[in-house]
Formats: sequence, C-alpha cells, structure tokens
Amino acid sequence: MIGTLSTEEINQLLRRHHVGRIGCSANDRPYVVPINYVYEYDAIYSFSVPGRKINIMREQPLVSFEIDEIDGPSNWRSVIVEGVYEELTDKSSLALATRLLANGFGALVPRGLDASPPMVLFRIRLTETSGRFERRDA
Amino acid sequence: MIGTLSTEEINQLLRRHHVGRIGCSANDRPYVVPINYVYEYDAIYSFSVPGRKINIMREQPLVSFEIDEIDGPSNWRSVIVEGVYEELTDKSSLALATRLLANGFGALVPRGLDASPPMVLFRIRLTETSGRFERRDA
Repeated sequence: MIGTLSTEEINQLLRRHHVGRIGCSANDRPYVVPINYVYEYDAIYSFSVPGRKINIMREQPLVSFEIDEIDGPSNWRSVIVEGVYEELTDKSSLALATRLLANGFGALVPRGLDASPPMVLFRIRLTETSGRFERRDA
Repeated sequence: MIGTLSTEEINQLLRRHHVGRIGCSANDRPYVVPINYVYEYDAIYSFSVPGRKINIMREQPLVSFEIDEIDGPSNWRSVIVEGVYEELTDKSSLALATRLLANGFGALVPRGLDASPPMVLFRIRLTETSGRFERRDA
C-alpha cells in the first residue's frame, strides 16, 4: 500500500536523519546535491563551501529538499519539503546555526568556519512538507 | 581529502545502485524526488505513475540526477548527472526499457504497466556526469 505520512512522522524523519538532497534551480537548470543538515525550528540548517549550489540559491531562493529511507522498491518512506533559502550573516543567526550544527556534526563545523574560503551557513525555511510511504502487504 | 571520481568509478556507482534522486524544475520551482532506475546505454531508465514530476519534465526536460554512498560526514561518494528527459512511447524503446527495468526490479514493472492509469516509462539521456568523494585521512 502507498500512503501519506502524518506531520508527526514527517518531523520524526527529518530529525532522525542528517543527510538529505537539496534541489535548486536558476533559469530552469536544476541541480541536486547531498547536504548535511540539522532540522530545528521549522528549518533545515546546513553549511557549504561556496560554489555552484550556493550561487544558484543566491540567485533563486526557492528550493526543494528530500530525505528518504529505502528498504526496497516497495518498502520506503520519503519526505519532500519546499522552502526558501536564507543565508545566515547576522551574529545571532550564525551563533544559533553554529551551535545546532556543532551538536549534529561535532568538530566538522568549527573547522569549516575557519576554512579559506569560509563556509557559508544557511537555512531552508520550510514552507510546505509532504511525506509518503509504500509498504509491501505481508 | 576531497577528490574527483574517474569515469570508470562514476559508471560503477551508477550501475551498483538502483535508487537515485531526480531534480526537475519548471518556472524555477525545483522538485526533488527519489526514483528507481537502471543505468544502461548512457541513460537512466525509470518509470513512474503520472504526476507532478512527469508533468514538470514534460514541460521542461533538463534535469539533474544524483546518487550517493554516505558512510559519514567526511566519508562519502556522490555522482551528479545532467540529462534530458525523454518519454518512451515507441514500441522498440518501450520493449527495451521494460526488459531493462524487469531485470532490475522484477515483478514490479509488469504490474505497473498494467496499472490504471498506466505507468510512464522514460529515460534521462546523460549529457554530463561528475563524481566526487571525501575520505577522512586515517
């Protein structure tokens, strides 16, 4: 059977995972790439070296974000989110994101923030979430 | 260290996996969703019930496709592909795709093709591939 995940199940999945795929697009050239993330306060917090996906999201901030658990072709759960890219630049947002990401990824983030060029910290503010599953009938 | 996968390593990864994420976009509203696929003849073969992603790719056929193997935040491989959506409608393309997908997914595909509404069979003809990896130094 194929079904819809509840809001609570969607939130649990978003919290349980720390890798998802972000889809961004400017001028209808879509680009999908995996990211590390932490889900908190109705947003996906993440960080990245500057590059193609950051350039695209700066140009066109509406993005899609996906996570899944796939146990087989007829046994899976996935969450698909729509949201808005927000680059974090003010002190309090940076402090919050650094704390959340450090909790999630430990030493990686401080190392990244000191890197050259410095990491970009951003969040995807969720505007819509949906979750689906398929389960093979026993 | 972060590095680039060779063409041979990219092909091996595309063959080893059968789940990837497709990113499509029309009017710069990106949409990312997992798909089952088989990689053959420089194309990603897949099938889907009619719906949002099929509608988007019919409108705007340039897509991105991604697979990954993630063992940790600093230990992963990913392949990102650009390609063009081609819906399969002629007899010989449908026969080829059905055979490839049946080999990959067994009973699922014939069941799907008899479904109502019928499955859409399509391929993503690859125009560009890239692969990257990160490996934590021991």
